[in-house]
Amino acid sequence: MKQVLASIVTIGDELLIGQVIDTNSAFIAQQLNSIGIWAHRRVAVGDVWDEIWETLNQESKISDIVLITGGLGPTADDITKPLLCKYFNTALVENQQAADNIRNIFQEREIPERIWGQAQVPESCIPIANKRGTAFGMWFEQNKKIFVSMPGVPYEMKGMITDFVLPELSKRYELPTIRYRTLLTAGKGESAINEIIQSFEDALPKHIKLAYLPDLGKVRLRLTTSGTDAIATEKELDEQFEKMKSLLTDITVSDNGDSMEEALGKILTEKKLTVGTAESCTAGNIAHTISSVSGASRYLLGGIVSYSNEVKHNILGVKNETLAQYGAVSEQTVREMVQGCLDAIQSDIAVAVSGILGPDGGSEEKPVGTVWVGVGSKENIVTKCLHLRYNNRQRNMDATTNAALNMLFMYVRNIH
Amino acid sequence: MKQVLASIVTIGDELLIGQVIDTNSAFIAQQLNSIGIWAHRRVAVGDVWDEIWETLNQESKISDIVLITGGLGPTADDITKPLLCKYFNTALVENQQAADNIRNIFQEREIPERIWGQAQVPESCIPIANKRGTAFGMWFEQNKKIFVSMPGVPYEMKGMITDFVLPELSKRYELPTIRYRTLLTAGKGESAINEIIQSFEDALPKHIKLAYLPDLGKVRLRLTTSGTDAIATEKELDEQFEKMKSLLTDITVSDNGDSMEEALGKILTEKKLTVGTAESCTAGNIAHTISSVSGASRYLLGGIVSYSNEVKHNILGVKNETLAQYGAVSEQTVREMVQGCLDAIQSDIAVAVSGILGPDGGSEEKPVGTVWVGVGSKENIVTKCLHLRYNNRQRNMDATTNAALNMLFMYVRNIH
Repeated sequence: MKQVLASIVTIGDELLIGQVIDTNSAFIAQQLNSIGIWAHRRVAVGDVWDEIWETLNQESKISDIVLITGGLGPTADDITKPLLCKYFNTALVENQQAADNIRNIFQEREIPERIWGQAQVPESCIPIANKRGTAFGMWFEQNKKIFVSMPGVPYEMKGMITDFVLPELSKRYELPTIRYRTLLTAGKGESAINEIIQSFEDALPKHIKLAYLPDLGKVRLRLTTSGTDAIATEKELDEQFEKMKSLLTDITVSDNGDSMEEALGKILTEKKLTVGTAESCTAGNIAHTISSVSGASRYLLGGIVSYSNEVKHNILGVKNETLAQYGAVSEQTVREMVQGCLDAIQSDIAVAVSGILGPDGGSEEKPVGTVWVGVGSKENIVTKCLHLRYNNRQRNMDATTNAALNMLFMYVRNIH
Repeated sequence: MKQVLASIVTIGDELLIGQVIDTNSAFIAQQLNSIGIWAHRRVAVGDVWDEIWETLNQESKISDIVLITGGLGPTADDITKPLLCKYFNTALVENQQAADNIRNIFQEREIPERIWGQAQVPESCIPIANKRGTAFGMWFEQNKKIFVSMPGVPYEMKGMITDFVLPELSKRYELPTIRYRTLLTAGKGESAINEIIQSFEDALPKHIKLAYLPDLGKVRLRLTTSGTDAIATEKELDEQFEKMKSLLTDITVSDNGDSMEEALGKILTEKKLTVGTAESCTAGNIAHTISSVSGASRYLLGGIVSYSNEVKHNILGVKNETLAQYGAVSEQTVREMVQGCLDAIQSDIAVAVSGILGPDGGSEEKPVGTVWVGVGSKENIVTKCLHLRYNNRQRNMDATTNAALNMLFMYVRNIH
């Protein structure tokens, strides 16, 4: 079986200026990889006719598939469509489906003249429907090479990859069976995990690869394998995965691809428990993250963003003496925040955080990165002090959110 | 003056698998751009000898500078250094400074054998010191082309770019002055803005470029120019920028690069106003976004995440009759949420949202994407109903947050 190779070409000055970070390529590479196609090159070029042209020549020489994103908007700097017309020696024709799609998107609103250009699609391509925007995708074939052009808007591109490109590519090529299993852990770092599973890792068969994917207090461990016999491949992978899992039980959040918030949602639903939040420094990010799972209203009742001390006192009932004596960032305060949250929100469990995320607000006694987290019920409250070391407000915010969600998850898991 | 062109080459399988999002390239491109070098191509390749070699050949043919990141670690899959040795026909020699650096990093800890390899540097290169890790950078020159190899660790690479690469490149080339101005607008889409400024755009001098950067209810408009005379370049750009601004006054959020939340923070600070939030469907995301600016505690007092009707009633004082008669997603409810938030949080201004983000929870009368937003003070409350069309919870969440922040911003702007 020959390895099928792809090049990913992103078009647009905004990527070269560095204003926009290219997340599309990573998504496409991941998706290709999941069906056994190796994206061996990624190229970003500007909105420049000759450079795009030359790149298509080059990449199609060394790859079976060239996936292109960007340059399909209705404005003058978007040159991908006319370029592809010329490149494949074809002409634009009106596509009924694309026209209907535009009408459907605009509904009663007036459709600007230039938008109608989006209904024009090159005659020789297979058009790819876009349920999420006006720009259709295009699938060309030439000299046994496949070229796919998609919009640069991540959300539109993703829909096309999932709904059309992957299934079509799977039909065209004989591809190996790629399987992977992911274990989400929280609370231990990459090195600490490595020490625990070192001998397991050393004993892994060569064709099974282990990847560590760390992300602010969480580490995803992914086992990947490929083979020609789907059943044997799955079986071997499952065995190794179970082995790895058994070594990491106490830090495991999910073994089925669920995110922390999905795993939390499932365990809360299963145990019929509700949760409320009391957030100072994260200012709603914990509640928002919990709510990002559809159906979260079954277990998330609400929360209090207590940024000011007045809100901590008035709504959460944190005593003024506590704030005066220990400060807003203290174990005593988060304990009272947990209690106040249970009373105000009337949830079974509450999670509370108060900390200093920086860059300002630190002191010698409580430097930037000092964060107290509390989780509890009417029965008992646990607390923890984080000492974050990121010199970046957003990272401290995310790390705090992750740590709080993990404490909440472990708390709920241990309720019998 | 000839445009100096650069290619950015990133090396590493992790980028091609899609595990890691490439933020290095954006940083490097931005930095090059700021000194007048145009990074016209970015290429990512795997840890494969021949592909890296061929990429260096190709890119050095079409660029003056090839900046390479990755593949400098101490493990076996890191092949950049031996490859560059061969490519530039030179040999490794021990570098005293690199050896001292390793000792300094490890201090009393034992230094593993393989780490000592990091002290070996190709003889013909200019070594680039790394204060943050063991891998030194390398600067080669050949046939009037410059090749720079740096580690893939963002933090190490950034130090080298700022401390060494940019100053050196500025010395070697005669570079133009690059300037840009960005206008952030909200509330109108790309096409609608395009119609308003079409004739301005048509009349722009060729060397000034206008880019539209849309993002869920916001559009950034960027004018970029380059010239040899810094003062004249700035002056011309400022004139054109003022012209564009004057056409878009009513939808302008910022003209100085500030984000929505930064602009909001400044105007609240300037007008000495405080704000509170009452969030149902966004569940804290509005408060969290406002808080992402350092110093937000000056104007963000707090908020209520009122996911359940009980919290809407108990804490925000929304009448049970209102909820029963009009439902949680209604103008009446968000009005009472605004009032309740002003009372509970005691802020000058309150913003409230209640809606259905999907995928579940919609009805014929109120389909997924129906969101009511309210903003107000004790004096008056304004409300608006959004009809979002994204078939995606997260996008509906972000679109709601952006729309609410924009309504809040415009409300505050209009207070005299």
